[in-house]
Amino acid sequence: MATTKFTIPRSVIWKDESISLLNQQKIPHVTEYLELTTIEAVWEAIQTLKVRGAPAIGITAAYGLALSALQDQSNSLEAFQLNLKQNRDYLASSRPTAVNLVWALDRLVTSLVETKSINEAKTKLVHEAIQIQVEDEEVCRLIGEHALSVFNDGDRIMTICNAGSIATAKYGTALAPFYLAKEKNKALSVFACETRPVFQGARLTTWELMQADVDVTLITDNMAAHTIKSKKISAIIVGADRIAANGDTANKIGTFNLALLAKSFNIPFYVAAPLSTFDPSISDGNKIPIEERNPEEVTEVNGVRIAPEGVKVFNPAFDVTPSELITGIITEKGILSGDYQVLISELFTL
Amino acid sequence: MATTKFTIPRSVIWKDESISLLNQQKIPHVTEYLELTTIEAVWEAIQTLKVRGAPAIGITAAYGLALSALQDQSNSLEAFQLNLKQNRDYLASSRPTAVNLVWALDRLVTSLVETKSINEAKTKLVHEAIQIQVEDEEVCRLIGEHALSVFNDGDRIMTICNAGSIATAKYGTALAPFYLAKEKNKALSVFACETRPVFQGARLTTWELMQADVDVTLITDNMAAHTIKSKKISAIIVGADRIAANGDTANKIGTFNLALLAKSFNIPFYVAAPLSTFDPSISDGNKIPIEERNPEEVTEVNGVRIAPEGVKVFNPAFDVTPSELITGIITEKGILSGDYQVLISELFTL
Repeated sequence: MATTKFTIPRSVIWKDESISLLNQQKIPHVTEYLELTTIEAVWEAIQTLKVRGAPAIGITAAYGLALSALQDQSNSLEAFQLNLKQNRDYLASSRPTAVNLVWALDRLVTSLVETKSINEAKTKLVHEAIQIQVEDEEVCRLIGEHALSVFNDGDRIMTICNAGSIATAKYGTALAPFYLAKEKNKALSVFACETRPVFQGARLTTWELMQADVDVTLITDNMAAHTIKSKKISAIIVGADRIAANGDTANKIGTFNLALLAKSFNIPFYVAAPLSTFDPSISDGNKIPIEERNPEEVTEVNGVRIAPEGVKVFNPAFDVTPSELITGIITEKGILSGDYQVLISELFTL
Repeated sequence: MATTKFTIPRSVIWKDESISLLNQQKIPHVTEYLELTTIEAVWEAIQTLKVRGAPAIGITAAYGLALSALQDQSNSLEAFQLNLKQNRDYLASSRPTAVNLVWALDRLVTSLVETKSINEAKTKLVHEAIQIQVEDEEVCRLIGEHALSVFNDGDRIMTICNAGSIATAKYGTALAPFYLAKEKNKALSVFACETRPVFQGARLTTWELMQADVDVTLITDNMAAHTIKSKKISAIIVGADRIAANGDTANKIGTFNLALLAKSFNIPFYVAAPLSTFDPSISDGNKIPIEERNPEEVTEVNGVRIAPEGVKVFNPAFDVTPSELITGIITEKGILSGDYQVLISELFTL
């Protein structure tokens, strides 16, 4: 570690003629950046989960579309637009359920309204893709600054899964305050729950915090209560997959556990999430569908079985934390706390 | 499964000229009983953790000492007694921290007081070893009957780790009610937490309950809260490693988590344990030392790393559940519930 230069890792870097993409499937064992030079390589990287995290996927797809446009040899703007539309559909098919993916691609397509030339179109597309990444980084930085305002020097904070820099443009959401604390010489310690069944905490969160020299300790998920008590944890902060109109929050399985423990130990429980995570069309958490994933995620680790053949398994990917357990929802616009129904409604009507 | 004969698995079976020992290290993949015919084989089986669970280790050692006595060719009772003492010390060295191991061996040695002949000694030793197993089975059965009295037909019950048949003579402690329910045609469903880092729930509890056709579903530890809510769990039952004079209970890491969740969801939380688990010399849980084990248990699964090299790890093997979170402690003498300080004191002064 002595010779390492500490940095906040990024998952996607635009290189004008290629895209550097962190291969998250090889983390934490190998730090490998793939150099993507074709739209097919971008499609394959998204499809095979080398990039994960909604914002990071959207950014990768946007750069992929911009890259394909730069390489376009069309002679007419119409032909160029036709290719763009086909490439948009092709990239959208790489991971059909990823909302951010389609959102980012359509934002690029829409940016071409009133464009007069192919060159102008190419410039606009690259600009728009960069803009998506810049905006996401700014959103994450603001979330981090607001989150940092509720933490004190020396605090020990618990998190789960990976709501981190490599899932976004930079900084992440739940992990953003730890990077900003580092920049501002505020000492925060992180306790990362390993996050079964897929181990995002053990594999990704520890790795990215260690890259930036943030003090992080790994525990298994069932150590949370004992750790909160014996290590004097000050607060818990988590990301979010979807937030309903009343503040109920769907996030990685295990989040609800931690929220209940926070209440038991009377420590604050924060959700860090951008406005894009809110879904005001969903009234409350009971309406959020919980995906159940295949049993092998639970019964096999690294391809080796750890449970009997034929055992029944319950494998929900997410759980829902009722809003009354949430001390504050930390967004780029500030911290919501109190009557979430009213606060969220105000946020989306202003 | 169609042709399987369902049975409650035993870990140790006395065969007069050998000991059949379930190789727990191969569970759940292979059901293998080792035939131990020498004291060296018994020593090796205990030392390499092929048998686990305090009662099961004690029973195995007792049979090992009886086996070596049967094979003794001494011509004098004095020479026989000298060999017995040496073999007792040899077996005691197989796992020096196992209290039950020494207790069982010394019980055999003590049983020879006033013995007149080698043949009488051999008979007494075998008898005493069998008696230890019979008594443990009876204790477990009584715990199971008391536990079953607090469960209702159709209940869904959560457990952690393996306080099961293969850790004892038969039935186990926390798992005993499920076997008795099966015998009595009472339908109970079990939700087994996998129990990181060593996966005793995933590997052992699911396996042994499936052998007896008990309905069991495997979850990861962080799914507990969501499962209690969505699957309408009725109660939680766990084993114990040590119970202090005030009822505070040390058990496998994650137990404290479950006790707090039980309180949050207002469902009962039971500890099932024989009187031998109580340590009235320890006033309360703060005095119980918590073993920290090596970080590789957390960072490696099946020898493959799942976390970065050099990551800090906190790996406590146990946690302590405060007695106020315990609805009842289920022993062979009945269920303690209320002022544990008084109840436990009465139990050990009567």
